[in-house]
Amino acid sequence: MADLKDRFVDFIRGLQDEICQAIEELDGLATFQEDLWDRPGGGGGRSRVLSNGKVFEKAGVSTSIVHGEMPEALKKNMKTEGSKFFACGISLVIHPENPMAPTTHANFRFFEMYDKNDTIIDAWFGGGSDLTPYYLFEEDAIHFHAEQKKAADKHDSALYPRFKKACDDYFRNHHRDEGRGIGGTFFDYCKANENHSLEDWYNFTTDMGKSFLPSYLPIVAKRKDQSYTDDQRYWQELRRGRYVEFNLVHDRGTLFGLRTNGRTESILMSLPPRVRWDYNVQVEEGSPEAELIAVLKEPKNWLN
Amino acid sequence: MADLKDRFVDFIRGLQDEICQAIEELDGLATFQEDLWDRPGGGGGRSRVLSNGKVFEKAGVSTSIVHGEMPEALKKNMKTEGSKFFACGISLVIHPENPMAPTTHANFRFFEMYDKNDTIIDAWFGGGSDLTPYYLFEEDAIHFHAEQKKAADKHDSALYPRFKKACDDYFRNHHRDEGRGIGGTFFDYCKANENHSLEDWYNFTTDMGKSFLPSYLPIVAKRKDQSYTDDQRYWQELRRGRYVEFNLVHDRGTLFGLRTNGRTESILMSLPPRVRWDYNVQVEEGSPEAELIAVLKEPKNWLN
Repeated sequence: MADLKDRFVDFIRGLQDEICQAIEELDGLATFQEDLWDRPGGGGGRSRVLSNGKVFEKAGVSTSIVHGEMPEALKKNMKTEGSKFFACGISLVIHPENPMAPTTHANFRFFEMYDKNDTIIDAWFGGGSDLTPYYLFEEDAIHFHAEQKKAADKHDSALYPRFKKACDDYFRNHHRDEGRGIGGTFFDYCKANENHSLEDWYNFTTDMGKSFLPSYLPIVAKRKDQSYTDDQRYWQELRRGRYVEFNLVHDRGTLFGLRTNGRTESILMSLPPRVRWDYNVQVEEGSPEAELIAVLKEPKNWLN
Repeated sequence: MADLKDRFVDFIRGLQDEICQAIEELDGLATFQEDLWDRPGGGGGRSRVLSNGKVFEKAGVSTSIVHGEMPEALKKNMKTEGSKFFACGISLVIHPENPMAPTTHANFRFFEMYDKNDTIIDAWFGGGSDLTPYYLFEEDAIHFHAEQKKAADKHDSALYPRFKKACDDYFRNHHRDEGRGIGGTFFDYCKANENHSLEDWYNFTTDMGKSFLPSYLPIVAKRKDQSYTDDQRYWQELRRGRYVEFNLVHDRGTLFGLRTNGRTESILMSLPPRVRWDYNVQVEEGSPEAELIAVLKEPKNWLN
């Protein structure tokens, strides 16, 4: 059987194709534009972006497979003496046009570290999927979480609750005391331990990857033709501002990428296309906007 | 004569009134909305925002006067053992509607630190004004810098070149290898030394404050009715995305404020109202857009 690393590379490439195809099919108008890029220190990536579709205003679905000497910033960041690394992953952010359809983000990744003699000294998986609605439809939140739980439960029923909480904790705009969205799953540093081998984590991560489309796409299919007003579109653009705030102020991956000369256009592919900031906008008590804010303030267990 | 601290408080309050009045007059339609706020640890502020004017799409002009126990984060940030502090300043960001008119930012501030016995152990002034055009008009850049230089030269002809360079260095989107704009002046930690007393720095900082309106307003007056296309408006919104990137990724004041529970709406008042991010937009060689990028890549000495 092929190396776990090689199998995961095949997996993310296949998943990228599958997700792009499904997005294009549901959109029915726009197609992905592809950019291949090389990383000076080793490896490269395949960035794909779809813009101004009928359903999707902007969708970025990228893979990168990079390796080489451990950059100094990475050593410091990870507090490690590792000498070389290999990292690969798929990362996506999808912004539908219709404010009734939620934005989503997902990524699935593998990291391996080597000593001077090219011996593996550490390896782990990470990833997750999360949902950022502009208007709250409880059934959509429940559907998304139920699909995430179903995929996780195949491996260990302790994982969904743990990674659901990690997602709420991580995707938080602390300066607003608000969640970025209504959560999903977030896992990192999944290493071989007494309960799970690295092969187990491979199986878990690929299953979570496969669960992305069934978690998200049916929600967009249901919401894409729902009517909306200019005020609702305005609200979506304001909330997209919060999305930008999280990604630029708090997201570790984005900041690390920007500070270590990553490919800026691929890193910031995640940012929404049209965004607004107005001063101190207040929502009306009892309004759908206030209802959204309430669940962002206080994360909810959707499956109880 | 009143305490330097009290005189500076009076100065920034008066300057806030003067600038708001001049902005309203030039706008001719919208007026500033004022919010007074208290800081839990001591002091407070006066935030003023004008929105959706005829000339100005968004303008925020705020003063804050805060004091109290040194927050732990501030001690760490400043590597000091000071026990109490006093800080006051005026801060403004102005985003005109017309893409031919530049965005501007300015702030002027004073900081004083005390030991346990309320003895002053350190004190300094800081501030500056800078310009962020969407289209480059050399005469505007020269006017802005000439006014800044004229005000600085009254005190010491070494200051403009030093603070002009500090401005280029500070307002840089390192991840894009671009300046945020075409510069101006930036000064900080201006303390009593062998060349200048603290009173000298008071005089310098207030003169730089007074030079803001003559530096900026004539440029907007000249550009506000210039015609523009949808494509030029699109370019302005894209470039505003860069403004957001600087403020959220690099600006020390913004990040420090967000991380220490400052008033988020007052801190992020600086963000432009309508913003876009599109993937990997390229400019045409020899176009006005390319001409702007060229001077952002390589800061220029406008007064040579």
